[in-house]
Amino acid sequence: MGDIKRVAVLGSTGSIGRQTLEVISALPHRFSVIGLAAGKNTDLLADQISQFQPSFICSQDKTPPTSAKHEFISLEAMASHPQVDIVVIATSGQWGLKPTLAAVKAGKRLALANKEALVMAGDIITREAKLSGAQIRPVDSEHSAIWQCLEGEKQKAARIILTASGGPFRGYSPTQLAKVTPEQALKHPSWRMGQKVTIDSATLMNKGLEVIEARWLFDMPFDNIKVLIHPQSIIHSMVEFADGSVKAQLGMPDMRLPIQYALSYPERLENPQLPRLDWDNIKEFNFEPPDFDRFPCLKLAIEAGRQGGTYPAALCAADETAVELFLSKRLKFTDIPRLVGRALEEHRATAHPTLEEILAADAQTRENVKQMVGDNR
Amino acid sequence: MGDIKRVAVLGSTGSIGRQTLEVISALPHRFSVIGLAAGKNTDLLADQISQFQPSFICSQDKTPPTSAKHEFISLEAMASHPQVDIVVIATSGQWGLKPTLAAVKAGKRLALANKEALVMAGDIITREAKLSGAQIRPVDSEHSAIWQCLEGEKQKAARIILTASGGPFRGYSPTQLAKVTPEQALKHPSWRMGQKVTIDSATLMNKGLEVIEARWLFDMPFDNIKVLIHPQSIIHSMVEFADGSVKAQLGMPDMRLPIQYALSYPERLENPQLPRLDWDNIKEFNFEPPDFDRFPCLKLAIEAGRQGGTYPAALCAADETAVELFLSKRLKFTDIPRLVGRALEEHRATAHPTLEEILAADAQTRENVKQMVGDNR
Repeated sequence: MGDIKRVAVLGSTGSIGRQTLEVISALPHRFSVIGLAAGKNTDLLADQISQFQPSFICSQDKTPPTSAKHEFISLEAMASHPQVDIVVIATSGQWGLKPTLAAVKAGKRLALANKEALVMAGDIITREAKLSGAQIRPVDSEHSAIWQCLEGEKQKAARIILTASGGPFRGYSPTQLAKVTPEQALKHPSWRMGQKVTIDSATLMNKGLEVIEARWLFDMPFDNIKVLIHPQSIIHSMVEFADGSVKAQLGMPDMRLPIQYALSYPERLENPQLPRLDWDNIKEFNFEPPDFDRFPCLKLAIEAGRQGGTYPAALCAADETAVELFLSKRLKFTDIPRLVGRALEEHRATAHPTLEEILAADAQTRENVKQMVGDNR
Repeated sequence: MGDIKRVAVLGSTGSIGRQTLEVISALPHRFSVIGLAAGKNTDLLADQISQFQPSFICSQDKTPPTSAKHEFISLEAMASHPQVDIVVIATSGQWGLKPTLAAVKAGKRLALANKEALVMAGDIITREAKLSGAQIRPVDSEHSAIWQCLEGEKQKAARIILTASGGPFRGYSPTQLAKVTPEQALKHPSWRMGQKVTIDSATLMNKGLEVIEARWLFDMPFDNIKVLIHPQSIIHSMVEFADGSVKAQLGMPDMRLPIQYALSYPERLENPQLPRLDWDNIKEFNFEPPDFDRFPCLKLAIEAGRQGGTYPAALCAADETAVELFLSKRLKFTDIPRLVGRALEEHRATAHPTLEEILAADAQTRENVKQMVGDNR
């Protein structure tokens, strides 16, 4: 059944990183870990190093205790290393951008879980991927679903229907939304994810970022991407074709399935640890349109995506900063879209930006948002 | 965009035949009608001949008025004619068997709408197709859905989930079922189909035949085919893969979509006449297990399929006869499964039958069922 693929996991101590290592542990005859990169969770990284014995290590913070067998290299060096077969980009926020670009330029197969890279620099990344022959395999359940539905089709999709759980506050009134606490927002009804993406799911910013991601991954105009609320999170997204036929991909809400598919593609592997849908206990699927008024982040994101240039970078930076401020209880839940909206209004955009201009827009916007709330740290 | 495909439509005056001609009319730059074959509806056949000017004609009954431009040939000759690119088998009941086999032996591309051919002789037909290289493209919406979901996948399906509307009497009690009239049974809630298949949908016999069809089309053990009631008839069926991922194909309940896909495969063609799903007005999908007690035809069919040999031929023959008797008000609705069950019990089966043995089982069973109800016509 083929050789063992050597996988580098960037962001190995985060939610997607840990689930990637679960998948690899379950399929040792197919995958091995050649590199591990993490941020500040040095203890967990040390455990992972001792379990998986990777050749390459990268740590943002202090160095975990390791033997001489492990070579310390940079994120970019790991993402583009010739010995790496598949690069999993599971770093959060803007930290994913540079290693994504390095992997793309090196013509790698990427399992891309980091949204911000494509949102901030989708134009640059997809252009470089075309030049190098790099293959960007989406890990987000929605984009994995679309990718799976497109597999084998001879033509592009006519339309993408991106499903959304609607988050834990789907039915909340504006008054209720204003009172939402970080503790409430961190309890997602169906998915097990990191903090930032869980809050983004509650504001629907996450869905907005996914719309922009879909625009780049599938070369799809914004007008042909529709967001549909489906609270059960079982249909992970759908594709409509020229003849009106629609394909959907379904599964339990478990990130290990799209992670595994991004590793095993074009094969599918049996993995007893992955849950299966139990049709004897599935009674109904519901659908409703998203409420752009109660969840303005969705509209802000799509608008930033349409405007292009450095707007999506400003969007990501403003949102990341606002979410941090909300988590540290310095903002209300409903202040997140307000702050992001203001940051976008004040943003001086650059069309067709370089990577440096994108990163500058990111830094500038973070600064602006902090000043807006009087945070002069 | 390629040449014009010459299509022979066998059963052109039936529901599927007429809808096939609608599709061809809408796409004259892609398809032309080279042959038309019909049963007893000579008037409609004459109209179709004058509209489509086919080279070849076959009529079961009296000859429609035509000019010298049209050559009369047999069903089998039309199904295997060298000038025919695609053979649409839309004849009903056991009439589809011989032309299907002729087309398969000639290595044709078949758009197969006739269920009975595969149910009665799936072993022979799939064996011959392997030898000749014939391509059997399913037209049934469920099997088209499965086929579409499998497209591009490198491995076989792990499981098939065959959806069923449940028919118009889904919630009926046994007492209510006993009183169902032909007029009630002919009103299907979602699909526009012929009389026989509409009654079969109401008894769930149709779903049972589809299970057997799926077994042959996709080489799938009966244990891995699950029937799931989905009253909205929008998910047309689903496929579960080795990794637990599930793909579904969705669309409006309109046979023209699977018909067109069977003609245009692997391409998909825009056709403004085909309806599209309107997600602004789709609120829910429901699912429930089928009730084998109230709808015993489903169980009888799957059992006949498992037993194999001439059992499925006896099943088809008994059902077709019982449905005719019900339509002429000589049987109650609930007598259909009773009669089919008795015919199967009394059937003396042959394992690995030849075509002749299958046709003999068919004729014998029809005779038996008629005798059971004292019909000595």
